[in-house]
Amino acid sequence: MITKSQLRFYASLKDGKARAGSGLFLAEGHKIVREGLKSSCPCEIAFVREGHFGDDEETDRLLSNRKVEVLGEEEFRKLSLTEHPQGILGVFDYRSLIVTAPGAQEIVALFDLADPRNMGTIIRSADWFGLHEFIVGESCVDIFNEKVVRSTMGSVFHSRFVLATDLARELAALRPGYRIVTADLGGVDYRDRKRGGKTALVFSNEARGPSEAILAVTDEVITIPGGGQAESLNVSCAAAIIMAGIRP
Amino acid sequence: MITKSQLRFYASLKDGKARAGSGLFLAEGHKIVREGLKSSCPCEIAFVREGHFGDDEETDRLLSNRKVEVLGEEEFRKLSLTEHPQGILGVFDYRSLIVTAPGAQEIVALFDLADPRNMGTIIRSADWFGLHEFIVGESCVDIFNEKVVRSTMGSVFHSRFVLATDLARELAALRPGYRIVTADLGGVDYRDRKRGGKTALVFSNEARGPSEAILAVTDEVITIPGGGQAESLNVSCAAAIIMAGIRP
Repeated sequence: MITKSQLRFYASLKDGKARAGSGLFLAEGHKIVREGLKSSCPCEIAFVREGHFGDDEETDRLLSNRKVEVLGEEEFRKLSLTEHPQGILGVFDYRSLIVTAPGAQEIVALFDLADPRNMGTIIRSADWFGLHEFIVGESCVDIFNEKVVRSTMGSVFHSRFVLATDLARELAALRPGYRIVTADLGGVDYRDRKRGGKTALVFSNEARGPSEAILAVTDEVITIPGGGQAESLNVSCAAAIIMAGIRP
Repeated sequence: MITKSQLRFYASLKDGKARAGSGLFLAEGHKIVREGLKSSCPCEIAFVREGHFGDDEETDRLLSNRKVEVLGEEEFRKLSLTEHPQGILGVFDYRSLIVTAPGAQEIVALFDLADPRNMGTIIRSADWFGLHEFIVGESCVDIFNEKVVRSTMGSVFHSRFVLATDLARELAALRPGYRIVTADLGGVDYRDRKRGGKTALVFSNEARGPSEAILAVTDEVITIPGGGQAESLNVSCAAAIIMAGIRP
């Protein structure tokens, strides 16, 4: 049986400071918790709402060897961050998802992304295209914010993250092993970019764009030509288009 | 001076029924109101918060020949739907954006899209790529819902909409003039789709996909090949990738 103070602690993980202090984060909903339980990311505890078992066979099976606590409606609500909770929530240890350096052929760097849904959606699209390594800039929203986690639809568990304290310096250190390719206005058509070698694709806040420091370490600026009247693309759409376009 | 009952009426436009009854909708924020004022869409009235004038030169200029009402903070909040209002809001007549039949070379049809942000983002991306005609299916969220409007970043004013009461029938009626190309799993690679002629691109709810009736009137199913572990792409990202890919 879980104590009130333990419950308070888990509920505190909605807050970034509590996450940073403990290395734990909350993931909510069937699909996302299932992806977590199928991954190598340690699940400290899962919470289900009374009457939840039997809702979803696969979830039940994945929970069968885990530490699970059944909560009443009211207690569950204290942990939940959704308006209409599905009744399942996992506490995972994000430290297993953190790496100190990237290694993949194509990696994604995120600069100044404040919107959790855009951030999560980029991680989900990257996962679709087989890109699993990210460098997350210092001014981005926390990857383990539950809105980000939810928007990844579980892809957060398939990914690895470098948490940069100075993204421009981090990118500089990757050169010349990696080619730094930054999405911005006024660059070359992304379809004509140079191919081959390791690449770090940099996506920035759509309103403010990349900083001078990021541009200073950029090898190639790429652009998605439009032709319509919109001033910009949503950053998660722009990232999806570019990630789709880099494949052979 | 505006009366309380008029203010109540404009606030009621947050609700779909009031919009349908009047043909009016709310658009909030500098960028979006500016796009509306620059467009041919009639602006019935604009509201600014006390002290707002001078915030943005272009907005001030665009408002100079319009019917504008200045509201106190509290009254403005009654109309506003954002947490941190920018202090400007326009009431526009959406009937000027409605058409009975599409005519463009490439059009977009939306099926069963419930999420306002996805809907708005698709309209914004389409605008970026010069696609401005939409057929909106009966089970989609209302285009003039303020969350949709906000996510379009003003592109709603550059677009024209057919509001379908039966999308499958509407698409059937477009054949064979238009080729119906539907995004779904298990189709041909979108990069290999047949080219030429008029095309209606159909995007559906990512969880449920297109209906049997939609598939029955589909000429070609297209798919975005992945290779990663994500189960699906966000629909606004999928739409962006496909719209980017249809250009020469």
